Amino acid sequence: MSGQLRRAGRKERIALRKAKPAFDPCPPGQIGGAYKPLSEAELNAIFDTALRLLETLGLGEVPERLRRDLEAVGAKSNANGRVCFPARLVHQAIDQSAKTFALHGRDSARSIEVGLNRVHFGTGGAAVQTLDLETRRYRPSTLRDLHDFTRLQDTLTNVSWYTRCCVATDVPDNYDLDVNTAYALLRNTTKPVATSFTLASHVAPIVEMLDIAAGGQGRFSERPFLKAHISPIISPMRFGEDAVEVVYECIRHNIPMSCITAAQAGATAPATMAGFLAQSLAETLASLVMVHAIQPGFPMVFSNWPLVVDLRTGAFAGGSGETALLNAASAQVSNWLGLPSGVACSMTDAKAIDAQYGMEKGLTSLAAALAGGNLIYESSGMTASLLGASFEAFVLDDEMHSNTYRILRGIEVSEENLGYEAIVESVLGEGHFLGGFHTYAAMERDYFYPSLADRSEPRSWAEGGAKDAWDRAHSKVRDLLATHNPEYLTPEQDAEIRTRFNILYPA
Amino acid sequence: MSGQLRRAGRKERIALRKAKPAFDPCPPGQIGGAYKPLSEAELNAIFDTALRLLETLGLGEVPERLRRDLEAVGAKSNANGRVCFPARLVHQAIDQSAKTFALHGRDSARSIEVGLNRVHFGTGGAAVQTLDLETRRYRPSTLRDLHDFTRLQDTLTNVSWYTRCCVATDVPDNYDLDVNTAYALLRNTTKPVATSFTLASHVAPIVEMLDIAAGGQGRFSERPFLKAHISPIISPMRFGEDAVEVVYECIRHNIPMSCITAAQAGATAPATMAGFLAQSLAETLASLVMVHAIQPGFPMVFSNWPLVVDLRTGAFAGGSGETALLNAASAQVSNWLGLPSGVACSMTDAKAIDAQYGMEKGLTSLAAALAGGNLIYESSGMTASLLGASFEAFVLDDEMHSNTYRILRGIEVSEENLGYEAIVESVLGEGHFLGGFHTYAAMERDYFYPSLADRSEPRSWAEGGAKDAWDRAHSKVRDLLATHNPEYLTPEQDAEIRTRFNILYPA
Repeated sequence: MSGQLRRAGRKERIALRKAKPAFDPCPPGQIGGAYKPLSEAELNAIFDTALRLLETLGLGEVPERLRRDLEAVGAKSNANGRVCFPARLVHQAIDQSAKTFALHGRDSARSIEVGLNRVHFGTGGAAVQTLDLETRRYRPSTLRDLHDFTRLQDTLTNVSWYTRCCVATDVPDNYDLDVNTAYALLRNTTKPVATSFTLASHVAPIVEMLDIAAGGQGRFSERPFLKAHISPIISPMRFGEDAVEVVYECIRHNIPMSCITAAQAGATAPATMAGFLAQSLAETLASLVMVHAIQPGFPMVFSNWPLVVDLRTGAFAGGSGETALLNAASAQVSNWLGLPSGVACSMTDAKAIDAQYGMEKGLTSLAAALAGGNLIYESSGMTASLLGASFEAFVLDDEMHSNTYRILRGIEVSEENLGYEAIVESVLGEGHFLGGFHTYAAMERDYFYPSLADRSEPRSWAEGGAKDAWDRAHSKVRDLLATHNPEYLTPEQDAEIRTRFNILYPA
Repeated sequence: MSGQLRRAGRKERIALRKAKPAFDPCPPGQIGGAYKPLSEAELNAIFDTALRLLETLGLGEVPERLRRDLEAVGAKSNANGRVCFPARLVHQAIDQSAKTFALHGRDSARSIEVGLNRVHFGTGGAAVQTLDLETRRYRPSTLRDLHDFTRLQDTLTNVSWYTRCCVATDVPDNYDLDVNTAYALLRNTTKPVATSFTLASHVAPIVEMLDIAAGGQGRFSERPFLKAHISPIISPMRFGEDAVEVVYECIRHNIPMSCITAAQAGATAPATMAGFLAQSLAETLASLVMVHAIQPGFPMVFSNWPLVVDLRTGAFAGGSGETALLNAASAQVSNWLGLPSGVACSMTDAKAIDAQYGMEKGLTSLAAALAGGNLIYESSGMTASLLGASFEAFVLDDEMHSNTYRILRGIEVSEENLGYEAIVESVLGEGHFLGGFHTYAAMERDYFYPSLADRSEPRSWAEGGAKDAWDRAHSKVRDLLATHNPEYLTPEQDAEIRTRFNILYPA
């Protein structure tokens, strides 16, 4: 036998099997785009309709400050008082926009690069209910939950950036809520993070807190590790004044932004999918032109999230085939325009951590990822049509995303991997491929080995108590929460923050 | 308001909501292929390696009768006694093969057309264990189960053809097993069906039974409504004598065939994915050349099913990201060659009907479908790495496939659907799209409304008993099994079959 197929001895084989893979075979940032739901002609038709909407219908309820800035770059107010964007202006905004940029982690090893066809899963929810670890029922989300979710996800590779997944409903004051949310992020993770600002006036004080964590005044803005989630457009086709003010303030403090359009098919946008995409593209382009008018090239994730309403009941349906398709198409459109695409997938309408949960997450997340969505929001931990967040969901989603990244990584077709000689040798030799070094090398390099998925036989499964994925995830969550208590703020930083802010979480 | 956006009155709206959709918005046979995991250069490299393997390594253990037939069309035996296929012969077999053909249902309204980029989900398992409806544990599958599974799937739109999903382990004799399996199909469904023949000698008598159902001697072969699942190749790169004999006998009786290559990455084929695809393509092409040598153009589904072994344990892993990717690539390769592609997806390693189940089925089935797999086997009802079959799984998978077909259907981009005028009217009018006839029309035409997926709020869900998808599917299965008792054989046909065969199922 040649060296390539030299058999490993029994001891070697056991050692090889037990060895942890030397590296993750499918880390975040894999390349998407192999799935193209729209043809070139269809992309052009949607883009042309969006341009026409922007040029002739325009946007309503434009705050005066923004109207002046938009007119200064070539927008025109029409007879209805709506602000219209000539196609030339939209093209200019696209051309001059930031095509790729970093989302910094406080730990720079955790920073990610947004853009091109790189895919990253992350969070983006604002659940008001938490699936309780004990009762398996939903109850209002608390500040304690927010801290626990944040430190739990800190252990999960496939949450590439973390936005607060739940709202601390036990913090009634909006300012306290924004402050305590930011504090939870600083204390429990060093990944790139994101948050929302209820009002523009909350931005400056929170940047003071971020500066304390960053090591001194002005340090945060030099290397911002937090981005803002903002919805400057209220569908259909008008601006929201408070959110626009937040945009100005974020740009002033060098906080990169996800400007999110969250139109709902059949409610705030057409139920026809092509029409939906045309309108929501126009709306997200309106955000881009806004940013262009304020500061050309300022980092903005082009976050065009198609949402779908179940028209039988009016309820939001996050796990539908339509959601999968529309978000995949949105990602394709954004990437085709060269813009860093943000979409919302891996959502589910299930309340239980059950087969519906898995199917809906599997279909929606794979569609968006294959289409090349750069940032896939809402992808971890969310349940119940985004009303709920679940600890068990976080760890299950993390493993699912590894499978998705494994799919995205694709197949390396090289002479070595085609392995003509190895096949001939095996066929004429031992008649199988088990145990050869060629096989072990591929096993370590190319295969993802799950820890939560049960691959045992039915009998072993029954003997082990017939546990389901919810049970297994529960055990893992308990272990992680019991052992992972990072304190990413120094005692001095923590004390300084507590002196200057009303921090409600115990020291 | 114009007619297009005329609002429906309250009564009209309630009626519209309650109305059953006039037609299925996403029936089987949607077009796949928008996902292309391999580039043109990679496709060529894999095909070239397969041709090289066929030309120089060839196939071992070729039965004498087949060897003579292969040599008659240009194959050559080499010094090792292996039979090698010149590239010209392989190209000829591809050129002259059946590119599309019908799988007939006994009810011709249920026939399907195989080929091009049309996608159909169906079954193909041979589970030896059934997930018991009462105990929620696995136990040996029985003839009764086989009848129950067959009549259950008869109600499910998205099982486009039905192969016996389980083996009646309470029928020990192989001939009785084949006969009673065929009988279960005839009695309980009029869809296109499929089965396996343990030995070639079982084919002729079973065709007699099929003739009785078809209305007289020779009638079955005129319009065959059953296909055979055969694995003529034993990986790596040799023929299996019994299966080859079955092939001859099926062709003699005009039974279309799925010639299935089921190589396992890392065990009977390379663990490197490119090498795997090259070998399994060569093997499936060997089946095609075999059919070509026996009867050029005879209908054969080019069933190249990549299977993956978990190399930590040697266990088959059906729900992995690698499985999804390899089967998608296999579908792409087959379609690229113009051959009717068969792959195996929507598999899972889960034993429980849980989140793992859903995620694995969601990822693997969507990948294969988007890649354009013509016949996606193992897609319904299978669990536990194909060792198990489940009633609840059948109804859940059926609904999942509707979502997948909804994704495949894609987005119709037309002037009407882009709806520029409708958007302008809504924005300048009522400021939303709810309740308009434009919206209702899209709702009926374009949206799939699930019956098992729970889209309610957490509180309603809890008040309803916090049921999960397994519970809901269970209720549906109970209803269907209690009410759907088709008898597709006339009493005369049934009596005649019972006179001539040892039918073990009570009349």
